[in-house]
Amino acid sequence: MDGLTEKKKSSQELFKGRIVHLFLDKVLLPNGQESTREVVKHPGAVAIIAVDEDGKLLLVRQYRYPLDSIIFEIPAGKLEPGEDPDDSARRELEEETGYQCREMKKIASFYSSPGFSDELLHIYFTDSLIKKGEQHLDQDEFLEVRAVDLEEAIRMAEDHRIYDAKSIYAVQFMQLRALRH
Amino acid sequence: MDGLTEKKKSSQELFKGRIVHLFLDKVLLPNGQESTREVVKHPGAVAIIAVDEDGKLLLVRQYRYPLDSIIFEIPAGKLEPGEDPDDSARRELEEETGYQCREMKKIASFYSSPGFSDELLHIYFTDSLIKKGEQHLDQDEFLEVRAVDLEEAIRMAEDHRIYDAKSIYAVQFMQLRALRH
Repeated sequence: MDGLTEKKKSSQELFKGRIVHLFLDKVLLPNGQESTREVVKHPGAVAIIAVDEDGKLLLVRQYRYPLDSIIFEIPAGKLEPGEDPDDSARRELEEETGYQCREMKKIASFYSSPGFSDELLHIYFTDSLIKKGEQHLDQDEFLEVRAVDLEEAIRMAEDHRIYDAKSIYAVQFMQLRALRH
Repeated sequence: MDGLTEKKKSSQELFKGRIVHLFLDKVLLPNGQESTREVVKHPGAVAIIAVDEDGKLLLVRQYRYPLDSIIFEIPAGKLEPGEDPDDSARRELEEETGYQCREMKKIASFYSSPGFSDELLHIYFTDSLIKKGEQHLDQDEFLEVRAVDLEEAIRMAEDHRIYDAKSIYAVQFMQLRALRH
């Protein structure tokens, strides 16, 4: 025993929606006591740091219902069942922005909120955008594309127009990239 | 109309747990169609980038049930009802690590996963740790404290021992800080 691990005693499915799959589990704690854990299972997601030929970062402006506000984020989306994250990243980039790319590489993966969810985000980078077609949005998806330079992205993070974890990560990544090049 | 905003038609509470408060809402989309939104309401949380007198970053090693694995994170915790995030950050730092600090400042806030949750994370920084007491953990909380230098933190992010959004943010923050100083 490592003195940290918890052991599942039972699991109850409470809700299965389009995104959220909620479970309430009983667990055995390291000290032998019982507790409960609420777990939101999630299919995982991809997000893309996409830099255009002018060195600008692509953002999508989107209403987020849980926040009741419009924010700017890097292009992103949920994994489809069985979909490879690499394919998902190219699909989401094209659907949300109309851009394809020659090369794209995965630069990081991280959990959004490991206290209650298993949502894993895969972050990709591309600076070889090759063509602008049309957006192909989901039926219930509405967003606008904008390209901003690094200074503008930093300002947008400071004043909370950019306001979510993956997009703040992207701004930091771009800052580190600029300081190294 | 901005062509992006969605309007709530009705809201159904599905589950109220210790962390997760789940709602299923009907919404009116910008195009006049209806859709549903799953929303996990969350009290918000704080996380602390705490640097000790040797310049090392404090991490807590903790089992995360939703991932079924042990990862290293920066100290963090949920807001108590009505609690000011500044107070929460000092409380969580002391509870999880036994450290207090002279000064602490908020450096960022961001949403963990704005597609389905309103969880807002407030990130604090301190490099004026003043005293090491005892941990005061919650009854169902088990963790170990470790201080690592920046090179080690970068390696830990690369090999996924550090594997969550707020802690990856912390590693990039420390990298940017080192490059500027």
